[in-house]
This record gives sequence, structure tokens and C-alpha cells, in this order.
Amino acid sequence: MKNINKESIALHKKHAGKIEIAGKIPVKNREDLLLAYTPGVGAVCLEIFKDPKKVYDLTIKKNMIAVVSDGSAVLGLGNLGPLGAIPVMEGKALLFKTFGGVDAFPICLATQDVEEIIKTVKNIAPIFGGINLEDISAPRCFEVERRLRAELDIPVMHDDQHGTSVVVLAGLINSLKLRKSRKENVKIIINGVGAAGTAIAKLLLCYGFKNIILCDSQGAITETRGDIGSTSLDLARGKSLAIKNPKLELINMIKEKTGNYENVSGGLATAINGRDIFIGVSKAGVLTEEMVKSMNAKPIIFAMANPVPEIMPDIAERAGAFIIATGRSDFPNQLNNVLGFPGIFRGAIDKKIKQFTPEMFVCAAEKLAGCVKKPNVNNIIPGPFDKNVVKAVASAIK
Amino acid sequence: MKNINKESIALHKKHAGKIEIAGKIPVKNREDLLLAYTPGVGAVCLEIFKDPKKVYDLTIKKNMIAVVSDGSAVLGLGNLGPLGAIPVMEGKALLFKTFGGVDAFPICLATQDVEEIIKTVKNIAPIFGGINLEDISAPRCFEVERRLRAELDIPVMHDDQHGTSVVVLAGLINSLKLRKSRKENVKIIINGVGAAGTAIAKLLLCYGFKNIILCDSQGAITETRGDIGSTSLDLARGKSLAIKNPKLELINMIKEKTGNYENVSGGLATAINGRDIFIGVSKAGVLTEEMVKSMNAKPIIFAMANPVPEIMPDIAERAGAFIIATGRSDFPNQLNNVLGFPGIFRGAIDKKIKQFTPEMFVCAAEKLAGCVKKPNVNNIIPGPFDKNVVKAVASAIK
Repeated sequence: MKNINKESIALHKKHAGKIEIAGKIPVKNREDLLLAYTPGVGAVCLEIFKDPKKVYDLTIKKNMIAVVSDGSAVLGLGNLGPLGAIPVMEGKALLFKTFGGVDAFPICLATQDVEEIIKTVKNIAPIFGGINLEDISAPRCFEVERRLRAELDIPVMHDDQHGTSVVVLAGLINSLKLRKSRKENVKIIINGVGAAGTAIAKLLLCYGFKNIILCDSQGAITETRGDIGSTSLDLARGKSLAIKNPKLELINMIKEKTGNYENVSGGLATAINGRDIFIGVSKAGVLTEEMVKSMNAKPIIFAMANPVPEIMPDIAERAGAFIIATGRSDFPNQLNNVLGFPGIFRGAIDKKIKQFTPEMFVCAAEKLAGCVKKPNVNNIIPGPFDKNVVKAVASAIK
Repeated sequence: MKNINKESIALHKKHAGKIEIAGKIPVKNREDLLLAYTPGVGAVCLEIFKDPKKVYDLTIKKNMIAVVSDGSAVLGLGNLGPLGAIPVMEGKALLFKTFGGVDAFPICLATQDVEEIIKTVKNIAPIFGGINLEDISAPRCFEVERRLRAELDIPVMHDDQHGTSVVVLAGLINSLKLRKSRKENVKIIINGVGAAGTAIAKLLLCYGFKNIILCDSQGAITETRGDIGSTSLDLARGKSLAIKNPKLELINMIKEKTGNYENVSGGLATAINGRDIFIGVSKAGVLTEEMVKSMNAKPIIFAMANPVPEIMPDIAERAGAFIIATGRSDFPNQLNNVLGFPGIFRGAIDKKIKQFTPEMFVCAAEKLAGCVKKPNVNNIIPGPFDKNVVKAVASAIK
């Protein structure tokens, strides 16, 4: 890890970042200049002015998305602010192009105020064909995404939520096949109910899982837990927005979709007892060998905290885990967002969709799971360099 | 022209715009991914978080500027809005890279409100090393530029103002050599006092010209003309900002710097009488043969309205013009912004300057003029493909 860090810093320094602007047409002589710039460009401007939808034929809007962050939740490193977020957003843009052929430009915002983020993204939206929100902390990310989806006519997705949940569901689909379990019967615990945990829970409900409980750093989440009963939350800068507590909303959604929510009180050690599936989007080392042993037979462990998972794979295995997945590339079953976002936006651009729907994400997860022709316990998800992934995921977005 | 328009539209359609995002480092295997993205990228983020100035070593901020427009004054075509402005801003980004090696990304804003423009640009500034404002109508452009210069720690330039004025001054420097005139003695009339005209007047004053009068579509501008005496102007959306009338401010600046402003009343035909130099940044065909004949001997005519100049070169020549320059590439002496902006920002980035000053622009004009080794009446300014231009202009920004 130390060497990777050092090498990564050296690489970023050598190139001053990871992306650049390249011309698609040459400007080598007077004729090139006449066509690419004045006077020829004026006719292109007027074409769009007369018929605004031509902007998708005549400009980069056709294939360009924004990767937008306020730097409030950079990887697992916390609130690094906009400058500290740039290397991740550049990386994302690089992967969008490399894997999906999608042009993406990083926008790192000098504000963490919900209304200002929304206003700013709306103001810069004309040049973009889609918005990928990134590393914006919960619960602000929910409001930012909801409003931008409602107020823009281009697809908007918070990748920490939906990209992650697509990859997790894909992994679960193949895991259930191997365990010969049915989605209606398995008991799931999700540990960590921020952006990713919330979106995972919602997508699993949409797919048809029937028994989900939630846990966070305060322990199992119940309707009666002190901090959950409140109906509104303070967002950034002490402003209180009229949004419901998203954890309470999520419990209500689980009850509505499944008819039940198990109000197990206590810590993770209590709540995990008798569960079939652990999904961790929380913190390094919070899942112990004993906790895994208290789960039902052949437990499925998705320990996705980065860079150090909730439990190391060797310990989980010793405790009897049937399938273990992490976010890391040095263990089998890497649940990596890069399997999701390039194909999701590739599909959105190619099909000219205006908004993403949960059904698209479920379908994307199924297609992604289908990329593994013969799943086994060490191969539930394709690798990031599998050439079939982008096409398969993109085909789900329509 | 018809063919150029058609060809330009076809070219834009073929490529869906003119620029794209390209990776500077490969992502071909697991090791590449570890360094470009997680986990290696986390160390880069923390380096910047600990020492924010490292953002210039480790990210695209080092060489990336924004080309920002609200689409309110696109070329000479008027208020086309943000979508209609995209082809020009993309073109500018293409030229920044092609001529100056500067990465530039087009931002077209869905607002024309001065305060919102300022707020939005400030909010997206973290990823950029400089801001090139473009095609924002006067007088709003003055306030937008002034405030962004004051409130950002990266160089900000409105190219319609300063890029244009640098190229005009360079052309004038060589023209005076050929006419054997001294800057202290020539009488100048500037026709058109929007963004470009205002900036040209200011830069000429800074260089040391002593006799400048102004003219707009209402005729010669005097301190007593009805619309000039007012001290504040309504800006967009009916809001009145506490800024002075920029034309009155300009007259006051001329008086302060030269000790005099000639209050000639009447139209252009009256005002131009006895002048040595005509600088037009106004409208097609407003300068007649008779007006040129009423000027002093060997008049210098810079007729820069685009695409049709204030007077066609053959008519100006017939009327006795000594030197004629336009914005067009199909006549000699093309005064083209592309001679200015790539080198100006190349220099700003390389020298890590925080703000542009008028002295830098004067020096840039002198360096640009110096690129023409042996000026003659048909060769007062280098061509856009002259390889020495960017280096010469960049050397002035320090």
C-alpha cells in the first residue's frame, strides 16, 4: 500500500493529472480555421438557436457528462473539500472514457450548501448530456440528486448510490444461484446506511428481496431509536430543509414493500444473529469472526469498506463464510463501481434517455451478473477489464 | 460563405463537436487501475488536502482553463443563449489547445444574471487554473470580470475585451512605424464602445496614445449626451447595480490620462473628420468612402466588424486608406483574437501569475508586433499559423 501511494503520487506529478482536452478535428491551415471557428461556426450556432435539440448532433453535449463533487465525502477519507477531491473525479473521468467511451469532465465545487450545489449544476448543465454526482455526503446527496433529477432534462445519477447498488445486486444474484437460495427467503443485514447503504436497500427491495434490516455505527436501526424518530434533518450550514429523515423513510419503504420491518435493537453483534447475508458499506474491521459465526449456515459476506474491508477475507473464511466479496482488486470477487457507471452512462447517451429508473438499474444488475458465464464462489462478478461488461450494462438502460 | 456554412455544419455533425476528453495515462491492467484510481488516488487526495498548493502539481488544474459564456453576445449574432454558444466555446477550446497547448473546457451558462454568473464561476473554479470569459454582452461583462478578478485567486480575462485589444494595439504599433507617426500625435476614433471598444480605448491609453474620441450607434459620445450623463445602468433582469455608466467612466479615464477629451457632437460622418485612425468594432458597412476621404492624409482603417467589416477593403483603398485591416482571413492584415488568447494563457500558466495587468497586455502587443520582421502595408500582423506568436506573447505575461 505504501508503495502504491508513492507510485500514484509520482504518476500524478509526472503528468499533472490524468486527463486532457484533445481536438477531434485538425486546425492546420486557413480552411480548417474557417470551418472550426469563425466564420463557419456562426452557422452552427444559428442552427442550434433555431432548433435547440440539434445541440445533440452538433456539439460535445452528445457524449459529454459532468462528474460533480463537493468533496464532502471523498472515498472513505471524509470531507477533503473540492481541491482534495480532484484526483478522484479526474480518475472517474479517465475510467468513463477508457471503459465506456464516454467523455466526462470533473467539476469540483467550492460550496457544500445544498441549494448552491443545485443552482450551480443547473447553471452549467447546458454543455453536458448527463450528470454523475460523486462523493457528496449523506443525507445532502439525496436532496441534491432528487432536485436535479426533477429540474434538469438530462439524466442525473449519484454513483455512490446507484452505481454501487447495481454492482452489489449483480454480485448477490450470482451468490444466490451458488447458494441455491431464493431472494424471497434470505435475511439481509446492511451495515452502513449512508448514500450507498440506502441505495442498496432500495434496489434490493425493487428486485424483490423481502427481509432487510439496517444497522449503522449506533447499532441496529429501529423506528423507535432516538435519532430516527425525528422527521427532519439539519443539512449543511445549519439550514434545516424540509426533508424527512432518510433512515426513517427507508424503514417505511421496507415496510411498505415487504409488509414488515424487524425492529431488532442492540449492536451489530446482536442484529447479525441468524442473518444469511451481510452487506457492509461502513468501516474497516467492524465485522468480527464471532459475528460471522452467529449468522445462518453458508453466510454471504460483502465487506466493501475501502481500502480496508469490514472483515479480512481469510478471517471470514475461517468463520465459515460461503462467499466473500470486497472492494479490493487483490482479493477475488471485487465489487467495483467501474463495472457500473461506464455502461450506465453509455446506455443513457446512446438511448437518449431523460432519466434513470430503478427498473433500469435492476436490469443492469441482471445483465452484469450474466457476464459471468460460470459463477463460482471466487467468481461471482466479472473483472473490470472484461470487455463484455459495458455493452451488457448499457443494453439495460433504455 | 454559403459553402463554408454548409461545410462547417457538416463537419460539426460528423464529429458531434470538436473536442473530447483524452487520458494522459493508460488503464490497461490492474496495476494501472490501482494507481490511477483507488486505492492509490487516495494518497494523492490527501497530499493536496494537507498542502493545497500541490493541486497545481498533481492535477489538471495546472494546465486547465474554463471558457465561460452566457451566450448573450455570440460573435456578432446576438443573444443566442447557452446552447447556441457552445460551438464557439468549443472552437475556442480547440484553438487554445492547438495553438497554445492549453487545455480548455467550455462552460455555457443557463443564466444571464450578473450575480448568478459570478457565483457559478466561483463555485466551479477549483478545477481550473484560469478563466477566459467569452461573448458576454456589455455592460454586464465589465462587472462580471471585475468581480471575478477581485474574488478569485486565478487569472481571469474577458477575451472580447483584452484579447482583441492586444491584437489591435499590435497592429497599430506596426502601422505607426510604416506611417512614420508618433503615438502622441495621432488622432483616433473608436467606433463601437461595447466590450471590445472599451478595452481597446483603455489599452491605447495605457500604451500612450493621447487623442482618442468615441462613437457608437447614437453618434459621437460626449459627456453631455443624454444617455451618457446617467451614473448607473440597468443590468440584466431589470436589476440596477451600483456601477457607473462605463462610457462616462471611459471618457473620464481619457481626460485623466491625456488631459483632454474632445466633445465632438454629431454622427460618425462629423466625428471622423480630421482623424488619422479609425478603429471599428461595430457593424457592417457603417464607414463610407466619403468618411474615409474626410480623414487626415494616409488614414489607418481597422474595420473589424464580423463577418462583414465596417467598410470593404477595396472601397477604403479607393478612398485613400494607407493601411486597411479587418477580422477576415480572405484579406491582408487579419486582426484575429487567435493571435492573443493562446499565448496570453500559456504565459499565465507557465509563470503562475494570479492576475493579468494592463502592462502585461501592452507588452504582449509589442511582442506580437515584433513577430513581423519586416512590416509593410499588407503585413502589419502575423498570420494565425506563425509558430513564433504563442511564445512571443507568452513571454510578455510575467
